[in-house]
Amino acid sequence: MIAEIISIGTELLLGQILDTNSQYLSQKLAEIGVNLYFKQTTGDNVERIKEAINIALDRSDFIVLSGGLGPTGDDCTKNAVSQIVGKKLILNESAFQKLKEIFDVRGIKMSENNKIQAYFPEGAMIIENKNGTAPGFICSIKGKHIAALPGVPFEFKQMVDDSLIPFIKERAGGGKVIKSRVLRTIGMSESRLAEILEDIFNDSVNPSMAYLAGNSGIAIRITAKAEDIDEAEKMISHLERRIRDRIEGLIYGVDDETIEESVGKLLRAKGLSIAIAESCTGGLISSTITNTAGSSLYFDRGFVTYSNNAKIEMLSVPEKLINEKGAVSEEVAIEMARGARKKAGTDIGVGVTGIAGPGGGTAEKPVGLVYIALSAKDCEKVKEYRLGKLRLRNKHLTSLLAINMLRQYLIGVK
Amino acid sequence: MIAEIISIGTELLLGQILDTNSQYLSQKLAEIGVNLYFKQTTGDNVERIKEAINIALDRSDFIVLSGGLGPTGDDCTKNAVSQIVGKKLILNESAFQKLKEIFDVRGIKMSENNKIQAYFPEGAMIIENKNGTAPGFICSIKGKHIAALPGVPFEFKQMVDDSLIPFIKERAGGGKVIKSRVLRTIGMSESRLAEILEDIFNDSVNPSMAYLAGNSGIAIRITAKAEDIDEAEKMISHLERRIRDRIEGLIYGVDDETIEESVGKLLRAKGLSIAIAESCTGGLISSTITNTAGSSLYFDRGFVTYSNNAKIEMLSVPEKLINEKGAVSEEVAIEMARGARKKAGTDIGVGVTGIAGPGGGTAEKPVGLVYIALSAKDCEKVKEYRLGKLRLRNKHLTSLLAINMLRQYLIGVK
Repeated sequence: MIAEIISIGTELLLGQILDTNSQYLSQKLAEIGVNLYFKQTTGDNVERIKEAINIALDRSDFIVLSGGLGPTGDDCTKNAVSQIVGKKLILNESAFQKLKEIFDVRGIKMSENNKIQAYFPEGAMIIENKNGTAPGFICSIKGKHIAALPGVPFEFKQMVDDSLIPFIKERAGGGKVIKSRVLRTIGMSESRLAEILEDIFNDSVNPSMAYLAGNSGIAIRITAKAEDIDEAEKMISHLERRIRDRIEGLIYGVDDETIEESVGKLLRAKGLSIAIAESCTGGLISSTITNTAGSSLYFDRGFVTYSNNAKIEMLSVPEKLINEKGAVSEEVAIEMARGARKKAGTDIGVGVTGIAGPGGGTAEKPVGLVYIALSAKDCEKVKEYRLGKLRLRNKHLTSLLAINMLRQYLIGVK
Repeated sequence: MIAEIISIGTELLLGQILDTNSQYLSQKLAEIGVNLYFKQTTGDNVERIKEAINIALDRSDFIVLSGGLGPTGDDCTKNAVSQIVGKKLILNESAFQKLKEIFDVRGIKMSENNKIQAYFPEGAMIIENKNGTAPGFICSIKGKHIAALPGVPFEFKQMVDDSLIPFIKERAGGGKVIKSRVLRTIGMSESRLAEILEDIFNDSVNPSMAYLAGNSGIAIRITAKAEDIDEAEKMISHLERRIRDRIEGLIYGVDDETIEESVGKLLRAKGLSIAIAESCTGGLISSTITNTAGSSLYFDRGFVTYSNNAKIEMLSVPEKLINEKGAVSEEVAIEMARGARKKAGTDIGVGVTGIAGPGGGTAEKPVGLVYIALSAKDCEKVKEYRLGKLRLRNKHLTSLLAINMLRQYLIGVK
């Protein structure tokens, strides 16, 4: 089967947004072995959308449109499809009821505009949108399919995962499958990792290995091409084992697993509780930890002690210590970790202080200097990091490194 | 002049990389008033690249190819262009010399493969690549142009800025300029906004209006087409004023301005300080506020009171109140805001409690129920919201809505 993606939206042509939807769907199609030879992008214009669909119908079997299903006047994807397949737009009673329910739950009056979102080309199969008001749909024409999904990324992804990919998979027949697995590491540079894994890298053709430097450490992507998913998985697992034998302690997660999920599992398994005291990260560590559902089982509280007074009043950091060593110091980080643990009565306390930038740096204590400390019954440690000059990146990296210190403590890495 | 972009690379079709080049060029073309109605993406395959170019030649005047100019066997953009324009690839002596110099400077032996990068269709104009080894080129056919640039983003951008855009600008003639401005709103649904602004929307052709539903509320994009940037700006400002007259309180920022920046400016201008008490957002509000450089001037501290004990101990929320009304209640939100303000000694306190999900909901208090409260000397208020079922989205929206409550207080919206 040959698929084709058409991304719709004038904002894409003006370069106002990045087309992340077509990237996401491309990955998913590759995973199920569906070929994709072309993608197109056009604006919110019925004639141009029709032109793009006609080009795609000439060369592809399954066409996926993304965008242009909103309730406002500039959204016209449905009209284009309706004209192409020669079917009128008619009200779908069940979609209309669901739409009404959404508005009832939200306690908002449904506007006339929204009713448009319950109209579909006659005979179309409706695709449920769990995250928004615009359902998608699939039409058939001459043995080919045209699917239309909304452009809002988190709506699009849910519908791709839950409905579109299963639908296509059923009809795709056998092609070669491309499957990837990503091992997420933190705490070592790409070049150092590459040195340690050099021989494995060099003799890995299929499955192949690639390093991806990202915002959350270095990821190692393993990609296998095989007759089916099972075979690909087996090939990947074999290479994964070889890599893990060398760097197990650095790998905090697989694929989309986040470091906070991995730490959450460890805390639950051990029945331990935590409290976080943070200065330069401004609440980001607590927020990251509470991104995981069920985190209330182990996360008790966070102290965002931005001012010195807050450090003194909330965590009992001695004022004298701050005056002598400075708020950004090893000693204050440790006192913050101790204070968090003590005030909250938790098993573990984490304390973080640093200079996020862009201002506030000195020759001795430059922007990017960060201290991360951990306090527990059987362990107390503090580490110094010298990160970069970018405020948001410093906050993000500090948060990752702090959660990784927690992870290392929990798995017994010194 | 109508331009068209063709992005080339199998990695784009596999979803391994995001197409940032075409976004960048789209922005640049809009800025100089060149229309872009279509973009295409295809893989490293001569026949498919030719097909894409032929489609583009039918409807566009200036075609820009990105990618497929590397030294390896899978790069075949040049061959495709050479066949389309009917010109042989010949060695360009001056490009060859420059290539040799690059390798000399780097102290690397030049491989035979690299020599390919000095071949171009006969008669092509060479575009210098200051950041890499692959020069670009421009060919003409039947009064139209085909330009090819390498796919590495920082090479592509340099060549777009230094060579391609000046070249196109010279030939675009009296092209009109397209300029956009985005008004960012929060707190009202797209359909409700559309109702309130319906008449303005309907009589806005140039400048035009569009709604963009995103993760941070609904954005309203105003786009003007004019003779020059100044005129476009004027047209945009006029429409912006009409929109603001209706929904001023909902607009928190313009273009890339974030709500935390806008609130930060207001707090600094008024010399007010804040403290945040949060439960379901787990520190995200404090973290968001401290994303802005200089936020230590007004942000004193945050209380991440995840457990009930934390609410009682850190904020003096009466235990009885939590038992009677529940931790997620209007009353507790207000007590949290008061507690934050009092404990920190700040001018303003914000308190947030809710059920982020996916667990913890009941029929009476479903997932997504959130209370946001603000306490100041001259004002105390609390609002109830019913958001969706997605944990991270609930955290994000709650944070936005809380910061917006702060903003509305600061600008005097009741």
